[in-house]
Amino acid sequence: MTSERLARQIAFIVEIGKLKHILRRTLTIHSDRNENDAEHSWHLAVMALLLGEYAGEGVDVFRAVKMVLVHDLVEIDAGDTYCYADYDPADKLRREQEAADRIFGLLPEAQAGEVMDLWQEFERGESPEARFAAALDRLEPLLLNYHTRGRTWQKHGVRKHQVMERAAPIAESSADLWDYARGLIDHAVEEGILSA
Amino acid sequence: MTSERLARQIAFIVEIGKLKHILRRTLTIHSDRNENDAEHSWHLAVMALLLGEYAGEGVDVFRAVKMVLVHDLVEIDAGDTYCYADYDPADKLRREQEAADRIFGLLPEAQAGEVMDLWQEFERGESPEARFAAALDRLEPLLLNYHTRGRTWQKHGVRKHQVMERAAPIAESSADLWDYARGLIDHAVEEGILSA
Repeated sequence: MTSERLARQIAFIVEIGKLKHILRRTLTIHSDRNENDAEHSWHLAVMALLLGEYAGEGVDVFRAVKMVLVHDLVEIDAGDTYCYADYDPADKLRREQEAADRIFGLLPEAQAGEVMDLWQEFERGESPEARFAAALDRLEPLLLNYHTRGRTWQKHGVRKHQVMERAAPIAESSADLWDYARGLIDHAVEEGILSA
Repeated sequence: MTSERLARQIAFIVEIGKLKHILRRTLTIHSDRNENDAEHSWHLAVMALLLGEYAGEGVDVFRAVKMVLVHDLVEIDAGDTYCYADYDPADKLRREQEAADRIFGLLPEAQAGEVMDLWQEFERGESPEARFAAALDRLEPLLLNYHTRGRTWQKHGVRKHQVMERAAPIAESSADLWDYARGLIDHAVEEGILSA
């Protein structure tokens, strides 16, 4: 007989499958379609495994991996907010907190609390792990945009200074990754796929 | 200036984006389309975070998470082999080993070796972590098939004994998860979405 506890865990696991259908504005590198949040979260998790050395000594890579795996779950209810769009941050926060309460609340209480802690730590961006996770969350779409010849940038009229601003949190985690990101943005401008 | 090392890591990260386009036979729960390997890997990673308690004391959940994040990368070159299809296991193994050599070989040597170790450990299925990862790899498609009313089973004429056989490795990691899986398969038969 399945315990109440396992039943709640499975209900959560089934529910979060919806993340596979939350589309982002970025295009996947190897086709013409939008990336979804589940794929994005997977990509960040692998990046966290590989790039931990750039985030400084003592960064708990497992915690960063956990954070990126769950950081977008609230978008199941709250939707993806395009980073270059005008939006009310207070409204976004309210919608995301409601989503977190409902979705994480499907889990047994202690686990719900753990996932809530991971999400809130990511959102606050204060710990080295949260800053590393945020850096990856900015670097991945930059890679995708660059390798799809900037089509999403062009479509939305995004310019270099906006991309630089969006990528800036990378610098708060890693000088090496920020150097890389800046170089990629400069290349994008030189190649004419991003407006100066 | 970007180091040769970081350049190789980024080349790998860009290359594995292709996993988002390797389609599986299972349908995602909340739409009509096939799941891809990147989404599947993400789902397994979250499951590993939540269900470690059922895999027995001392299981290294982080290692299992790492394993599921990279376990399907070889399918970028070798493709997805449908579990109920007739295929030559030696040929599958040869194609997957070639894929591992090429794809993991994009990384700096020590990291390539780490990813190779994770993949081979998963494939051998001998460690508690590999058995846990394999159990999740069987449980997730079972959940998807059940919650899409068995459409993939019906399409391919799959019967209960085949699903039971496919799910059997779950028992080697966890009695609780195996009980759950068996119950779900029985429900599927009772509900007429899986042939006895």
